[in-house]
Amino acid sequence: MSIQKKAPIGIFDSGIGGLTVVKAVMEQLPDENIIYYGDTARVPYGIKSIETVREYALQITDFLLSQDVKAVLIACNTVSAAANDEVRAYCGNIPVLDVVAAGTKAAMDAPAKSGNIGVIGTLATINSSTYDGFIHAIDPGKKIYSKACPLLVPLAEEGWTDNKISRMIVAEYLSDFKTKELDALILGCTHYPLFKEEIIRYLGGNGTRVIDSALSIAQMTRELLQDKNLLNDSGEHGAFNCFVSDKPQRFQQLAERFLGKKLHRIEISPLL
Amino acid sequence: MSIQKKAPIGIFDSGIGGLTVVKAVMEQLPDENIIYYGDTARVPYGIKSIETVREYALQITDFLLSQDVKAVLIACNTVSAAANDEVRAYCGNIPVLDVVAAGTKAAMDAPAKSGNIGVIGTLATINSSTYDGFIHAIDPGKKIYSKACPLLVPLAEEGWTDNKISRMIVAEYLSDFKTKELDALILGCTHYPLFKEEIIRYLGGNGTRVIDSALSIAQMTRELLQDKNLLNDSGEHGAFNCFVSDKPQRFQQLAERFLGKKLHRIEISPLL
Repeated sequence: MSIQKKAPIGIFDSGIGGLTVVKAVMEQLPDENIIYYGDTARVPYGIKSIETVREYALQITDFLLSQDVKAVLIACNTVSAAANDEVRAYCGNIPVLDVVAAGTKAAMDAPAKSGNIGVIGTLATINSSTYDGFIHAIDPGKKIYSKACPLLVPLAEEGWTDNKISRMIVAEYLSDFKTKELDALILGCTHYPLFKEEIIRYLGGNGTRVIDSALSIAQMTRELLQDKNLLNDSGEHGAFNCFVSDKPQRFQQLAERFLGKKLHRIEISPLL
Repeated sequence: MSIQKKAPIGIFDSGIGGLTVVKAVMEQLPDENIIYYGDTARVPYGIKSIETVREYALQITDFLLSQDVKAVLIACNTVSAAANDEVRAYCGNIPVLDVVAAGTKAAMDAPAKSGNIGVIGTLATINSSTYDGFIHAIDPGKKIYSKACPLLVPLAEEGWTDNKISRMIVAEYLSDFKTKELDALILGCTHYPLFKEEIIRYLGGNGTRVIDSALSIAQMTRELLQDKNLLNDSGEHGAFNCFVSDKPQRFQQLAERFLGKKLHRIEISPLL
């Protein structure tokens, strides 16, 4: 079966963070239809076993394929690490991109001066050494400096991304990176693009390229669809459909903050 | 079957927070044996359905009863709200205390001046109006001021309970309470005793009694065991056994911070 140009791009995450990827894709590809699935009933994935994460990832992939998507974007660091191969195999000829590979590629594209790469993420992502594996698969010579920043996710969800408290927390977490000569710093969590401006401001032109992997995966998606001649050329503005497995309190408000725009309809569609 | 004085007290929580209750019970009752169960594999309960929370709570209760406990302490706000009756029914003649009832009782014992009670807790606890129900069941005339403080749990787990950042966050959350005439402010989350000193300092002698429900439930436990003639009078110092359903990264360090002392052994015992 041939892939349709008008078909939507499917994007998924364990929760709400992947909406930063949706935002970036909307900006890069305003004509594309997008379907998002956030597994809000079962978030966070980072504390679950690899087997469970794989099972959940395939359930969501199955849902997206049932909506006839033309590409699948894994907008979740935990799934990228645990279930990348499984999702690719399940998707067959439908192309799959993931946020860890995209962020890694963008970091490796930064001009190499010191050969040092910085990575920040959740405790689960940093402890699993996900990025180390992806980076060293491309260049085993890179030296990696990692730092878990567990407060940034709840800070983003509280909406404190640009106040005195968020500035102090960013400074506390990144103080080691301010003096290190990093070629690139990967924002290894889908919540972190909300702190990008603050992080760039804090690092203060020390030459580190800050990698927003939401932006990286959106650019890779555009290139992929161009290469495969799959860009939506219908001339219509893209539609957005947002599905979640549960609708927690304050979800609408939160989702709109991550998406950077109004969200008129959220459908609840549990998976089992 | 008669209850043995030497039998342990069983204490449980969805995760690590209930160790503040263990700490308070150890201080009040140093001769008592204690068994703790933290459901670290399935935390947080606050986002799960009531049916699921009940099922999990009864699984843990069953485990504690299999260890021949002489009392069960529910050191989890979500379980107190969702499964109190179920746990009590399951325990039969073994007495059950819970952290919400204990905190509520202590708040009602504060000298009534304004008739106002403040409650802080997680989003799940505040949105469920758990404390409102317990307080109004005793005195429907009380006026309740609630505030969700979602950053305090990750702050406590990060170990930032007494630095510039934690002081600013406490001030941000409690600014409304500083000027309100509250008879009592209930710390409605088992993580919050770690911020008690900071909260008392911030409120700065405005007459509000700060209710540490870990301390309250420990005092009620002592009174209960005295009344029932069940205090351990063997003359031996109490032993502590700590069970968890999973042992996340940094658990030992975190647990010791909550417990306020070294923890020599943690057993992993999943429930299904």
